[in-house]
Amino acid sequence: MPIAFTKMQGLGNDFVVINAMNAPVSLDAEQIRALADRRFGVGCDQVLWVEPPVDPSRAQFRYRIFNADGGEVEQCGNGARCFARFIHEQGLCDQRCITVETLAGLIELILEEDGQVTVNMGLPRFEPSEIPFKAAKRDALYSLNISSEEQVSVGAVSMGNPHAVLQVNSVDTAEVARLGAAIESHSDFPRRVNVGFMQIIDREHIRLRVFERGVGETLACGTGACAAVVIGRQQGLLDERVTVTLPGGQLVIKWNEDEQEPVWMTGPAQTVFTGEIEL
Amino acid sequence: MPIAFTKMQGLGNDFVVINAMNAPVSLDAEQIRALADRRFGVGCDQVLWVEPPVDPSRAQFRYRIFNADGGEVEQCGNGARCFARFIHEQGLCDQRCITVETLAGLIELILEEDGQVTVNMGLPRFEPSEIPFKAAKRDALYSLNISSEEQVSVGAVSMGNPHAVLQVNSVDTAEVARLGAAIESHSDFPRRVNVGFMQIIDREHIRLRVFERGVGETLACGTGACAAVVIGRQQGLLDERVTVTLPGGQLVIKWNEDEQEPVWMTGPAQTVFTGEIEL
Repeated sequence: MPIAFTKMQGLGNDFVVINAMNAPVSLDAEQIRALADRRFGVGCDQVLWVEPPVDPSRAQFRYRIFNADGGEVEQCGNGARCFARFIHEQGLCDQRCITVETLAGLIELILEEDGQVTVNMGLPRFEPSEIPFKAAKRDALYSLNISSEEQVSVGAVSMGNPHAVLQVNSVDTAEVARLGAAIESHSDFPRRVNVGFMQIIDREHIRLRVFERGVGETLACGTGACAAVVIGRQQGLLDERVTVTLPGGQLVIKWNEDEQEPVWMTGPAQTVFTGEIEL
Repeated sequence: MPIAFTKMQGLGNDFVVINAMNAPVSLDAEQIRALADRRFGVGCDQVLWVEPPVDPSRAQFRYRIFNADGGEVEQCGNGARCFARFIHEQGLCDQRCITVETLAGLIELILEEDGQVTVNMGLPRFEPSEIPFKAAKRDALYSLNISSEEQVSVGAVSMGNPHAVLQVNSVDTAEVARLGAAIESHSDFPRRVNVGFMQIIDREHIRLRVFERGVGETLACGTGACAAVVIGRQQGLLDERVTVTLPGGQLVIKWNEDEQEPVWMTGPAQTVFTGEIEL
């Protein structure tokens, strides 16, 4: 039976999105790899499908996201934005505020007037044990040994996944590949770490490149943008609302510095084309 | 206005195919690049559209093929096979033998019972001036200097485009990247050359890797398969019907060694999915 899908992208991170509200979808890892293949399938970074919620009293939808290798992932900021556009374009919901069940728990989304989507990215967590990061106590900056001759200074935070953030003079000349790989696998981050290289333009604008754990540099990392703004804000360098320019485009991150308040991320999501495939 | 398309592939070489029989299609280079982009468009190596022929007394169809960079190309064996499957799947033609106008002239295609497609690949041309290749006279093998210490022995032929073919003991260990690049840009081939590395399994079966001019190694090169079989056959090493195993799959090449007779190529073509995109 052919499967109808929508190909979407957010900041260059691309998705095959499937409506499983009426007919359940159950693709195995091999079928997901086939769908994600860019020559022999549709081609995407991730496959996302939308189902009815397990608990309709708490959420309107549930979604699941799978990497191109077939493995399920907990959460993805770019995918969450595509999900919100998708359910509106498909006429599945006319509310602007949506609550959705994910593997990472409930997520709140807001469809903005201009078509951008705002996502509640949850609370930043700074305690070293929560990141996890090996440090005697919580601090604003930590010194990491890269080699016997080289040290870098990083902020560390969890946005559901671990992040280290370095301030750099210019993202154009930052040694993202070399330092990213060295910090990602540093023994002080027992579950490895995503590494952000942040250039501060002014109090409302940063440029950012992110070396993602297990992947390398990507066009845009939503949790990485949140982590950078949170770290910059805690150091007194940024205001509450910050535009983050990533290689794939722009996100706006808001955080009021209260550690009991979530970080909000606003950014684009776009339908590229629709199609049908026989698997 | 949305454009309906079919995504197809032949031996891993992939195409966005558009039916322009009833509504003319005219995409500029920028639109073709947008369509071919694998994240922000549909994604393909080439865009192909099918139009009515200029001269209906000689051909049933006309097609045009454009590379992902927007430039028009003359011919493509994998694209020709996809075209033949496409017009049958779309119900545009129920004949098994099709003649089609291309930039390279008229091409004959046969849709086989098993869904594979046979393409008349034209006459091989051996005269050095027709390849073009700088040699005093036509020969079965030529010696090429790679450096002052290194020489290789190649056959040379034009299949509409220039080919040099090296016989190797094993395609697995052949130095395709290094020798391919050196021969491709050798000064004796003034328009550069495609380079085939041929391992003879027996008289009816070869393995082949091709370093394509301006591209590098590809999954499958139709004219390269023809060139290898023609060269191997002229050296008395192969029979009339030869199976060619390429990294992307298999082709069958037939040539009766009469230089006034065309080379025939048979291979697969497949619809991957159908879709609609707004450009």
